[in-house]
Amino acid sequence: MKLCRFDDDRLGLVEAGDIVDVSSALDALPRHRWPVPLGDDLIVHLDRLRPMIADAAKNGIRRSVASVKLKSPIANPSKIIGAPINYKDHIEESKKDQGIAHGRVIRTIGDWGLFLKANSSLVGPSEGVALRFPDRRNDHEVELAVIVGKPGSNIARADARRHIAGYAIGLDMTVRGPELPSFRKSIDSYAVLGPWLVTAEEIADPNDLDFSIKVNGETKQASNTKHLDFDVFRLIEFASAFYTLLPGDIIMTGTPAGVGPVQPGDVMHAEIAGIGAMDVTVRAA
Amino acid sequence: MKLCRFDDDRLGLVEAGDIVDVSSALDALPRHRWPVPLGDDLIVHLDRLRPMIADAAKNGIRRSVASVKLKSPIANPSKIIGAPINYKDHIEESKKDQGIAHGRVIRTIGDWGLFLKANSSLVGPSEGVALRFPDRRNDHEVELAVIVGKPGSNIARADARRHIAGYAIGLDMTVRGPELPSFRKSIDSYAVLGPWLVTAEEIADPNDLDFSIKVNGETKQASNTKHLDFDVFRLIEFASAFYTLLPGDIIMTGTPAGVGPVQPGDVMHAEIAGIGAMDVTVRAA
Repeated sequence: MKLCRFDDDRLGLVEAGDIVDVSSALDALPRHRWPVPLGDDLIVHLDRLRPMIADAAKNGIRRSVASVKLKSPIANPSKIIGAPINYKDHIEESKKDQGIAHGRVIRTIGDWGLFLKANSSLVGPSEGVALRFPDRRNDHEVELAVIVGKPGSNIARADARRHIAGYAIGLDMTVRGPELPSFRKSIDSYAVLGPWLVTAEEIADPNDLDFSIKVNGETKQASNTKHLDFDVFRLIEFASAFYTLLPGDIIMTGTPAGVGPVQPGDVMHAEIAGIGAMDVTVRAA
Repeated sequence: MKLCRFDDDRLGLVEAGDIVDVSSALDALPRHRWPVPLGDDLIVHLDRLRPMIADAAKNGIRRSVASVKLKSPIANPSKIIGAPINYKDHIEESKKDQGIAHGRVIRTIGDWGLFLKANSSLVGPSEGVALRFPDRRNDHEVELAVIVGKPGSNIARADARRHIAGYAIGLDMTVRGPELPSFRKSIDSYAVLGPWLVTAEEIADPNDLDFSIKVNGETKQASNTKHLDFDVFRLIEFASAFYTLLPGDIIMTGTPAGVGPVQPGDVMHAEIAGIGAMDVTVRAA
């Protein structure tokens, strides 16, 4: 099942290249008064919603993908987690390029651990990326994004798969510089998630997915998740050793070699096998 | 006005050392279905709630502070922001102690920028701190926490004060090691906020507040916010240059010299002038 959020927060089921409006299924979700429980309610209640979504799809209005505004399919993550150096070829390019390293000693993901991106930086593909510091280097980083489905802490690798709700394409946009990653990578619109959530059962092996990004039609990054240092299941084990993972938490799994700057006016086209593709436009803030 | 969250998410007004239950005022807050707007609704609606809180206090049940369980007064921050090296004496101790620096070159907050702590790490004083890695060094860091009141981006220093809803005591608990701060400082329960929110009008100058922490009765850190490198207003200007600040966002402003390890069984007693004091117990996870 592929689920998107579109236009004024409508829920869409992606079917045969179209989007079927299944927003009526959202009526089954609870309403919360302060304090709101942490986590994304669409994901918390996803299994319960499935038959309602199927029902709603029977008579749902059908729209073309091109005619809607795609927002992030996850609206309320408790956290957006990033993997800083998780492909060997990106580690190598980072060591060689002081425009990336900025004097830091590049180690391994086991040493560095994971970082966070601000929830306020999350957007969908149709919202685009706005550069706040156009005079600095602002890089695309395309990644497989894993959406946590079930809460968990100290999750064993063997159990990790059961904690996954689904997958999406993530862009971990980054301004280069001396600052900590959780600052440089948290600018408004610097976490792009889309085009939709693909539920876990549709992806046979998340650790063997081709993916790529083009800027203005030119391929800049192209790899496969089999080259991950910490693979999808190890990332869940590693993250949950430090903190509780909650439904809707987003894990951006890391980016391969080929990161590079974008400018206002550029169009990024990102693709992951089994998920889909999305276009994201860059502008000045 | 001093406002706390206690027991099963009740709202309390702190008056003459007691807590008056004013939970009925919460009925005025809206209910949200997915997607839930970012930000903490108590803070979003605080000005509108003030007369209702005053009304509710007239007949509210009065409890002693010692008889309630104090939770974090902020429940739904969009982000918890930390200042990594914001007191000169802490920078000096970090340079001298590889148990803190772990090979990193300690620079300035202007170079390093700010970091994030996971929302899932937020607790109140009565919930205590649980050490996941008791064999590693786990340090207390006491700090003034600033609560954002009004949304804003690119806020000028001169306007910063108008964006503050209030203040609390923050403990930026930290496991030392080579990992990025947003990982090491995001362990469940490693962001303690309490004992209550003191609204902005009660603090004449947030950049001149004595504060301290004792562990088992022995003073470990004692300083004044006048020694901040980036003061409260500059931190708001700096943070909002990178991302939009939202009501309920928490800025932990940084810690002075004297950070040191805690062990299961320890009791931390933190105080800030004009805010109050809180006891926080350490246990093994």
